[in-house]
Amino acid sequence: MNYGERHIDRAMIPEPTLRRLPWYLAYLKMLDLKHEEHVSSTQIAKRLNVDASQIAKDLSFLNIKGKTRIGYEVHPLTKVLTEFLGFKYRHNAYLIGAGSLGSALMRDLGLMQFGLNIVAAFDIDPEIIGSVVSDIPIYDFAELPSRQRSSGVAIAIVAVPFSSAQEVADVLVDSNIKAIWNFTPFRIKVPRNVVLQNTSIYSDLALMYNSIEANVNNKNITK
Amino acid sequence: MNYGERHIDRAMIPEPTLRRLPWYLAYLKMLDLKHEEHVSSTQIAKRLNVDASQIAKDLSFLNIKGKTRIGYEVHPLTKVLTEFLGFKYRHNAYLIGAGSLGSALMRDLGLMQFGLNIVAAFDIDPEIIGSVVSDIPIYDFAELPSRQRSSGVAIAIVAVPFSSAQEVADVLVDSNIKAIWNFTPFRIKVPRNVVLQNTSIYSDLALMYNSIEANVNNKNITK
Repeated sequence: MNYGERHIDRAMIPEPTLRRLPWYLAYLKMLDLKHEEHVSSTQIAKRLNVDASQIAKDLSFLNIKGKTRIGYEVHPLTKVLTEFLGFKYRHNAYLIGAGSLGSALMRDLGLMQFGLNIVAAFDIDPEIIGSVVSDIPIYDFAELPSRQRSSGVAIAIVAVPFSSAQEVADVLVDSNIKAIWNFTPFRIKVPRNVVLQNTSIYSDLALMYNSIEANVNNKNITK
Repeated sequence: MNYGERHIDRAMIPEPTLRRLPWYLAYLKMLDLKHEEHVSSTQIAKRLNVDASQIAKDLSFLNIKGKTRIGYEVHPLTKVLTEFLGFKYRHNAYLIGAGSLGSALMRDLGLMQFGLNIVAAFDIDPEIIGSVVSDIPIYDFAELPSRQRSSGVAIAIVAVPFSSAQEVADVLVDSNIKAIWNFTPFRIKVPRNVVLQNTSIYSDLALMYNSIEANVNNKNITK
């Protein structure tokens, strides 16, 4: 398996490829737990319902090639993917909005397993400022700029009500935050040099409801 | 504003449209809070960074047309979108896996606001079976088939370790669950008549890490 010999241009990797890499990693980890040594792209393809040629193409972006007849080596590929996806490193982050969703994220140890370390939370509610959730202190949001200056934290997770999302993002950008993970359904705007990642679990919920409704309608029609 | 006069074929609505509708709703809700009465597609477009023609097209799938010069009526459109997206109705659901992410979801009141009501959780860990989180009881996963039969719950949220995801999904399908919301990074397989919605917040995390790295590399190059 060749890796790291040539430069990987991250900006050139298509988003669909980036979204599939964690699927491969999850499957490889499972094989690794079972002490499987090799896996073919056909095997991955069958299991994950992705074209084998697509898998080979996706992995080629990381300069990874399988060997003829043998396929990919499970353990090394697991390591390479974990490292490439950034899950191996510790990324410190602030959480903004320690309400229902926010405190849920503070309690999710999964984030830590995937390299995200929430070092502090911020809110505007006097009732929760000063308290601690899962060993993470909650500070007054007004303190964010000065705390960012001394900590240098680069990532902020936004879990505030959607009506405050843009206002909060503006403060974060002014405070030198480099990446915002937006959990609100609001499309916030940030300057081009700031990374914005949107995650809307409620949009996914709407998609699921729609598929359920579509299924029900379909059944009524075919009856 | 015309709505509901013609039949809406949900299966015909493209996924990107369905993903944008909650953005429009979030913005409309904000305008509604400010007692704004009308909004043009140009105004929505500017705020959300989507083409005005795209917005008009998206809303036309719901048989909604804006009026020339006036645009869309904020309050009625908010109601129509909330109803169409299924956020107005109560959908009962089971949560499978009351670990870190699972119990975080049990605590997220946002789900309830968007119409998802977790009525019970299931786990295999004797240490947590029998306990209650956010008023939601945690049962033995072995009881799921019999509990489903008496409750008729149709939706299951899967938040188990990825290595058990398929096994759990198989039990759910056999137990007559109609829709699975999969929070694991594992690509589970289900029969065609079962709705599968994947949400991988850790994939989004990988996307964010990659953008951060790409930004850093880009800056080094242009220096």
